[in-house]
Amino acid sequence: MNGDSYGDEFLKDFAHLSTIGATRRGGVDREAATLPDAMQRAWLGGWLASRGFRVMYDAIGNQFGLLELAPGAPYVLTGSHLDSQPTAGRFDGAYGVAVSASAAREVADAAELGDLTPRCNIAVVNWFNEEGSRFAPSMMGSSVFTGKMSLADAYATTDRAGISVEGALSGLGMIGEMVDLDVASYAEIHIEQGRELERSGAQIGVVTGTWGARKFRVRIAGEQSHTGSTLMADRKDALLGAAELIVFARQLADRFPTPPLHTAVSTMDVYPNSPVVVVSSAELNLDLRCSDPQTLTEAEALVRSEAERIATSHGLTIEIERTHAWESNDYTEALFALSESVSENLGLSHQRILTVAGHDSTNMKDVAPTVMLFVPSREGISHNELEETSEPDMLAGRAVVVAVLRELVTAGLA
Amino acid sequence: MNGDSYGDEFLKDFAHLSTIGATRRGGVDREAATLPDAMQRAWLGGWLASRGFRVMYDAIGNQFGLLELAPGAPYVLTGSHLDSQPTAGRFDGAYGVAVSASAAREVADAAELGDLTPRCNIAVVNWFNEEGSRFAPSMMGSSVFTGKMSLADAYATTDRAGISVEGALSGLGMIGEMVDLDVASYAEIHIEQGRELERSGAQIGVVTGTWGARKFRVRIAGEQSHTGSTLMADRKDALLGAAELIVFARQLADRFPTPPLHTAVSTMDVYPNSPVVVVSSAELNLDLRCSDPQTLTEAEALVRSEAERIATSHGLTIEIERTHAWESNDYTEALFALSESVSENLGLSHQRILTVAGHDSTNMKDVAPTVMLFVPSREGISHNELEETSEPDMLAGRAVVVAVLRELVTAGLA
Repeated sequence: MNGDSYGDEFLKDFAHLSTIGATRRGGVDREAATLPDAMQRAWLGGWLASRGFRVMYDAIGNQFGLLELAPGAPYVLTGSHLDSQPTAGRFDGAYGVAVSASAAREVADAAELGDLTPRCNIAVVNWFNEEGSRFAPSMMGSSVFTGKMSLADAYATTDRAGISVEGALSGLGMIGEMVDLDVASYAEIHIEQGRELERSGAQIGVVTGTWGARKFRVRIAGEQSHTGSTLMADRKDALLGAAELIVFARQLADRFPTPPLHTAVSTMDVYPNSPVVVVSSAELNLDLRCSDPQTLTEAEALVRSEAERIATSHGLTIEIERTHAWESNDYTEALFALSESVSENLGLSHQRILTVAGHDSTNMKDVAPTVMLFVPSREGISHNELEETSEPDMLAGRAVVVAVLRELVTAGLA
Repeated sequence: MNGDSYGDEFLKDFAHLSTIGATRRGGVDREAATLPDAMQRAWLGGWLASRGFRVMYDAIGNQFGLLELAPGAPYVLTGSHLDSQPTAGRFDGAYGVAVSASAAREVADAAELGDLTPRCNIAVVNWFNEEGSRFAPSMMGSSVFTGKMSLADAYATTDRAGISVEGALSGLGMIGEMVDLDVASYAEIHIEQGRELERSGAQIGVVTGTWGARKFRVRIAGEQSHTGSTLMADRKDALLGAAELIVFARQLADRFPTPPLHTAVSTMDVYPNSPVVVVSSAELNLDLRCSDPQTLTEAEALVRSEAERIATSHGLTIEIERTHAWESNDYTEALFALSESVSENLGLSHQRILTVAGHDSTNMKDVAPTVMLFVPSREGISHNELEETSEPDMLAGRAVVVAVLRELVTAGLA
């Protein structure tokens, strides 16, 4: 096959993949370890196996397809994640997995044809639970793979219905025996989920670093009372405390415009959630993200002091637990030029860019030389069914990954 | 039996009733049409049947115990509700049902002994779903009984799990065939759920009217997006809109101190409720309560204009539906003096009082002459496991109900 027919096949495969767990408005709903997730994993496994890859799971449900090109050598690993948020777009994660599978096969074909001399093997990965919507935290599969989270802690995580990761994975037959993979390098491509490429007109983003992130779980405790008869002054309303904290978090972003601070609260669980009882318990998440660590430190201190003010003012107790954090730090500098030169060879415009969102590559870059690439996403819309990347952009990104993998496989970086 | 032994039996029965659905901190958890609700209904049915009452359900699951004292005459009806909020106190509703059953039996015994000449029959009622926590709105059973809500609408109401009232009632065998009851008058006693009696030292509250209430369902729609990478200015955050409305509702109460306006938001359901997705949909309740109708009208207008401001400011749509309301209005004035004189005869101090909370009597007073009485509740704590009324206050209230029922049964009001 020539490059064009690989591209055609890739578009067809991606279109088919997008039918699994499809939603009415053109998106997908494929949370980790749900039936649609199992279905897409079955589809990917079939795709890989029928093209010569050895397909296996590790203990946390990461799905691998291995292809031996240079027996005994380490692996160039490439992939992303197929799981999605609820009512999400069809590109986030799935685009990268589909590109990686297609590109890995194309590079292996070239090796088999004698077109290049491989010094590494090649493997495709579909990481488990990158999204973290059903089971927090996000990037769970790559966190366990890179030793940042213990398998026991991951297994013990439960969803709102009380189902554990271990139970969900084993129930769907997604726990495997693969133990170790000798990774020479890692490459991932993803939609940007921002507007920078769209604004600049660049076709390829070369990710040079991440924003830092600090994620918190906030538990607010008040007291049940009657919403009608209780004097306003006697109420200890946990939902009111939560509301004040949400409003404060949004205002906090405006205090740090450059570099921008992003803040968010996006979950809320209240008890007893009755129309006639003042809320006694509210639990929410709170995220702070910025490229500047000092801003994160200041913002966290402001959140904590505001929480104290709210607690005192309404007779509440507020507990803030930092559940997950990563520092603003760099990808593998030695590989930026590689991404840039292959883009130029392909006639594609490119720019260096930071990622605000976490990715599995955020974990992988700390254990192996890592390439992270972006393609534009329309209006920066993401985690939304209307997420969109054009076919030319999809194909341009695929071509860059093919070229990067060729270099990594022949260079034998390790 | 003399009065004291009726009182002793009542306290024992109430203590036993409090063991059904008991919680760790001394409260109860017996939401409508749950297993604990079915158990307490079975207990009450047994108590009534073994004491000569004819026990039956109507179509909406109101539980009646009928006792014929004057064949063919209308009924003096007395009761309250056994269902509770989640993790609630043991007095709210259950105290009134236990008093009514005990007092009705005592009055009937007096009639059978020739101690009084009944011109009415007597019936005890345990209304279905007064609380409205599982199935909104509250006071459902008495609303259907008094024709304020259609049986079809009540049946179609679902809980968060999608179970309908009809399904829940029929599954527990709580739908009966009773069609009509000719009600001469209605009497109910309840804990105050406020601090007025405690402050004044009065032992009995004679309820002369209700505050008005307006209850709303608010639906806020935004757009899903990534909590990290989406520019703050691009977000349409439904939870932020909800938070601003909650904070506004609390501030609104301070603007109307005399007569006081009570405001509350106590439910919150968000979608997709994921740590990494901006909330696209939030649904909450909002209540306004005041004794002054003009204040309610002004407060509602302020809520609606603030909702418009919030919607415009954050790119949201906000829909406010008025789901339930009652006007501030009066109980049966002709009966206030009756409650007062029987209290005086018993040597009990009393005062006239308004009710902020809705009660089944709020419905019944519009179709029959109605007596509504309060006993003190410690610190006004209610809808809370720590709800408390002393034994002397419990017994004083019971004695007043006995005396009121004697008058109503002999007077033959109709």
